[in-house]
Amino acid sequence: MASNRFGNMFTITTFGESHGEGIGVVIDGCPANLEISRKEIQEELDRRRPGISFFTSPRKEKDRVKVLSGIFEGKTTGAPIALYIKNQDADSTKYDPIKHLYRPGHANYTYLEKYGIFDYRGGGRASARETAARVAAGAIAKKLIYPMDICAEVENLEKILSLLEVLIKEGDSIGAVIRCEVKNVVKGLGDPIYQKLEALLACAMLSIPAAKGIEFGSGFAAAEMRGSEHNDLFGSFGMETNHHGGILGGISSGSPIIFRVPFKPTSSIKQPQRTTNLEGKEEIFCLPEGSRHDPCVALRAPVIVESMTAIVLADALLMNRCSKI
Amino acid sequence: MASNRFGNMFTITTFGESHGEGIGVVIDGCPANLEISRKEIQEELDRRRPGISFFTSPRKEKDRVKVLSGIFEGKTTGAPIALYIKNQDADSTKYDPIKHLYRPGHANYTYLEKYGIFDYRGGGRASARETAARVAAGAIAKKLIYPMDICAEVENLEKILSLLEVLIKEGDSIGAVIRCEVKNVVKGLGDPIYQKLEALLACAMLSIPAAKGIEFGSGFAAAEMRGSEHNDLFGSFGMETNHHGGILGGISSGSPIIFRVPFKPTSSIKQPQRTTNLEGKEEIFCLPEGSRHDPCVALRAPVIVESMTAIVLADALLMNRCSKI
Amino acid sequence: MASNRFGNMFTITTFGESHGEGIGVVIDGCPANLEISRKEIQEELDRRRPGISFFTSPRKEKDRVKVLSGIFEGKTTGAPIALYIKNQDADSTKYDPIKHLYRPGHANYTYLEKYGIFDYRGGGRASARETAARVAAGAIAKKLIYPMDICAEVENLEKILSLLEVLIKEGDSIGAVIRCEVKNVVKGLGDPIYQKLEALLACAMLSIPAAKGIEFGSGFAAAEMRGSEHNDLFGSFGMETNHHGGILGGISSGSPIIFRVPFKPTSSIKQPQRTTNLEGKEEIFCLPEGSRHDPCVALRAPVIVESMTAIVLADALLMNRCSKI
Amino acid sequence: MASNRFGNMFTITTFGESHGEGIGVVIDGCPANLEISRKEIQEELDRRRPGISFFTSPRKEKDRVKVLSGIFEGKTTGAPIALYIKNQDADSTKYDPIKHLYRPGHANYTYLEKYGIFDYRGGGRASARETAARVAAGAIAKKLIYPMDICAEVENLEKILSLLEVLIKEGDSIGAVIRCEVKNVVKGLGDPIYQKLEALLACAMLSIPAAKGIEFGSGFAAAEMRGSEHNDLFGSFGMETNHHGGILGGISSGSPIIFRVPFKPTSSIKQPQRTTNLEGKEEIFCLPEGSRHDPCVALRAPVIVESMTAIVLADALLMNRCSKI
Repeated sequence: MASNRFGNMFTITTFGESHGEGIGVVIDGCPANLEISRKEIQEELDRRRPGISFFTSPRKEKDRVKVLSGIFEGKTTGAPIALYIKNQDADSTKYDPIKHLYRPGHANYTYLEKYGIFDYRGGGRASARETAARVAAGAIAKKLIYPMDICAEVENLEKILSLLEVLIKEGDSIGAVIRCEVKNVVKGLGDPIYQKLEALLACAMLSIPAAKGIEFGSGFAAAEMRGSEHNDLFGSFGMETNHHGGILGGISSGSPIIFRVPFKPTSSIKQPQRTTNLEGKEEIFCLPEGSRHDPCVALRAPVIVESMTAIVLADALLMNRCSKI
Repeated sequence: MASNRFGNMFTITTFGESHGEGIGVVIDGCPANLEISRKEIQEELDRRRPGISFFTSPRKEKDRVKVLSGIFEGKTTGAPIALYIKNQDADSTKYDPIKHLYRPGHANYTYLEKYGIFDYRGGGRASARETAARVAAGAIAKKLIYPMDICAEVENLEKILSLLEVLIKEGDSIGAVIRCEVKNVVKGLGDPIYQKLEALLACAMLSIPAAKGIEFGSGFAAAEMRGSEHNDLFGSFGMETNHHGGILGGISSGSPIIFRVPFKPTSSIKQPQRTTNLEGKEEIFCLPEGSRHDPCVALRAPVIVESMTAIVLADALLMNRCSKI
Repeated sequence: MASNRFGNMFTITTFGESHGEGIGVVIDGCPANLEISRKEIQEELDRRRPGISFFTSPRKEKDRVKVLSGIFEGKTTGAPIALYIKNQDADSTKYDPIKHLYRPGHANYTYLEKYGIFDYRGGGRASARETAARVAAGAIAKKLIYPMDICAEVENLEKILSLLEVLIKEGDSIGAVIRCEVKNVVKGLGDPIYQKLEALLACAMLSIPAAKGIEFGSGFAAAEMRGSEHNDLFGSFGMETNHHGGILGGISSGSPIIFRVPFKPTSSIKQPQRTTNLEGKEEIFCLPEGSRHDPCVALRAPVIVESMTAIVLADALLMNRCSKI
Repeated sequence: MASNRFGNMFTITTFGESHGEGIGVVIDGCPANLEISRKEIQEELDRRRPGISFFTSPRKEKDRVKVLSGIFEGKTTGAPIALYIKNQDADSTKYDPIKHLYRPGHANYTYLEKYGIFDYRGGGRASARETAARVAAGAIAKKLIYPMDICAEVENLEKILSLLEVLIKEGDSIGAVIRCEVKNVVKGLGDPIYQKLEALLACAMLSIPAAKGIEFGSGFAAAEMRGSEHNDLFGSFGMETNHHGGILGGISSGSPIIFRVPFKPTSSIKQPQRTTNLEGKEEIFCLPEGSRHDPCVALRAPVIVESMTAIVLADALLMNRCSKI
């Protein structure tokens, strides 16, 4: 199956591994005549790249995006848009010492079960580096859904920032929750049964590495509320509260879409951890010298959350053109 | 788009409205030679139907499933399996008095925005009645994934049951959380990027009416944990803890899959509620006389959660046959 | 895979076997607010049913279509439309004597290879009876694509009709070519690479039982033409000739779409034929007493060709809504 | 829609324009552990490239394929395989003089209708150059379907070759028929209704630029045959004749698959042709100086036909893993 593809009408297909030649995305289904420049795509990418602050990963990539096709004289042509980011600074020899070990919290165990093979270089396809391709595609989706406006932020950012120095010293990591809000939402997006807007967004968010869940509007708290309290009443100018989170019966109501996504702490930590090797014998796993260490991957997640949200909304917007005669 | 379809390889397409002729499902992609009887499907259906206990909806349907195609001499043939449940006890005239009103917490507002039309009879397509078709399909999926074993239950069931009498008297409702665990999980299910097993399950769960979120394993709590605490270490017999919830890098690890889904309180309550009519003028909304009232829809949700989980796993199981040479 | 489904946006999923309960179709993706009546669907169905003339199959079915969902007060609602035709006059016991034999020209040999099982009753899923479901769906597609106008006809009809009496006497059959022309074609339908309008129509036509090929415009004759002769020149009012058959670069040009489809002679003939049984031993195959015998299945094919064409065009029309900003 | 994608399980998505940066393909769904080298892919590509003989186009590209992802240490990993071919020798300024004209036999007329924009440089996305990406993907598909063996050839090759010198002198072109045969076919490939193997192959072939039709086995001739003559009888070792062309009821029978595809004469000829400009005024169209001229594009088509056939069979082979319990 095309398991590296996302979307129905506005679709993205990503490719590439952490320490291979590069990563990229093919956007298939973007309407013609959308104005978009390489620079706008690059600006989104610059928001997620590692090495951008003192606290995040030291890998100093430039992540320079190249437009391989689909944009001509500043506009989309209706042809597939291929975007490509060459890998740099990717020395994979340092992974040799650990290639026979299961990495705690990592996917090489399950990849081996599934494929019988694992590209161990820096996480291979399982690396969060693949999300750069999503962000590049998201830049185009954002243009398409304008003036819908997506705002994602790390909850309790101050507190997390205050912990980073200690975490780096201890070689440990921490999780965080990203809250996302969409304003100026077009009414009528999403389809009522299996393409409910919540279902599509949930799928999109849970496809981001390290995401552990999602809740919309009142979310888990709704389970303890009464119907008389939870129902959003209709006043003359729409709904007066927003427990529903902007989606009703799977379809956008025009109220802001609100959801929250918890991210687990970074799996790659600098502390030694018990594990087994491929033969099942116990060993101690240590991150190779010079490995990147993000004490909190979630700090780079807002732009990824925004990108996937934009892609879902772009897709729903196009689909919605076919709902009525 | 085929927005009433779910799955890639083992697919379901449902049809039917709450107060129309009936509801049904076409299962396309079930392998040939699976033993299944009408009775097994009926038994699953009997677990969800309203009117089964004192506390739930008084609608006394028999929900008798009919096999229209795809099963011959007790076995699937590889042809599409159509299952059909005729509607009974469906007097739709009682909905006439409210057909010009937006129903608080309901989808007629958003349906009108999307389609410019609404089948107001008992919620039409937006009714939870559609989930009966999923349960019928789920019965077949459960057979296919055997011996994987799905256990869903209402959290805090005792407490909720103790509240029901009061809720019925007050005409109010309450939400609940469903916890789901899958045992004997085949390793290697799910695909690493956009068909991550969490993404597929999240999509499936958020497609259930009234679901407001999902979390896997440590879930929202992971956001406050350290990496050194959250990573599940590999011992000689697999992983020793299960913060990851049975899915790592999007692929099943063989540990039990664990997730929780919050359901909002039933939207249809017996209390008068403020709303507006289709012209935007304020009115009071009252549920028509004789309408069904489920004080807690989530009580009927476990079998639906199990069914959608089984459908996701059946699909992933088939897809997994193509992962290796 | 959803191999019983056709289309991207306007999709049909058919189910049912020749001698089972009945056959049906779920149309998913039809826009809301299209006016359509049960009677209009029935009228299309009446054009294909057997027993309608002296020369065609004696099976006297009524093929009465029932609308199970998706149409409310004479209009589509955006919900899936399920149409169902109950089987009648389907005595399957007569097939018992031949259930251990490979039927010449029939699919039971290949079904057994694929599925390890075969519903032998009257061809089961492989029966042309499945096409009734397509015709029912086609009736709705035709309404959607109005005023595009599809005209299909049997070539050399007079000659074929003059042969029928002899063929019936001899228990033999004959093939025919169906020519299809579409007028008032909307320009811009079809996508340039893998969803070329020719590719979609070719897929649709070769999915009809007994079809053996297709050619567009100049077709096979083009292979012997010069470019200077074949190119359709642009005059001030469009193209002056139509060798291209109405599709250029995969996209409709506005000229009439023209294609031809050859159908093989009916496989079920009344003459004894050599075959082998399931153990590979030679036997003589004779059609059971009272079996239907169509000396020329192609005579009933025009409405099927029209229906599949309408479904392709309806799908392309919806898709085309998303080609531009 | 993902209209630049082909296949269900073994899928290809192509991108790139004739005179842009380059062209490429992402193969999503290839099983892990398939041995494949860059050299094997290059060898297939070398079979289709222009400039390879005296008679074909003078464009002297190297068409050197680069593996961007998905292959590690000589084997597929289960990750998407991206192949890329940089464009060279692509001077697009020469197209300036004709960018305001409809090109006879070309797609710029229909592209403008569809997209409101056209990348006029050398045909843009509509150029046959896109087929290089298919051939690269086909090289991998061929490895996957081994030992199935695909043989495509130009019919009447001698006669066509004898005409080429005259055609070049006259600036004219000619069509041809490609005949394709597949040996050692696995039984049971293809699905009975809309994914019939003929339907998939027809879709694949009609997606090749300049293809005008297809016929299987007896094809158009079947329309004039009797059933008693056309039915392939079963002897003790399978079928004794092959009018069915290797596919029965949509499923491969194990007999060789045989089909023929007519290609129209090359549209780009060196003779002046009447046309209109974008304003509808008549002009004379002349191919720009230095433009490539293939007097018979079909001469390069066999490897393209083989590649698309291999992709269809690879897809069907994977799908078939899910047909039985």
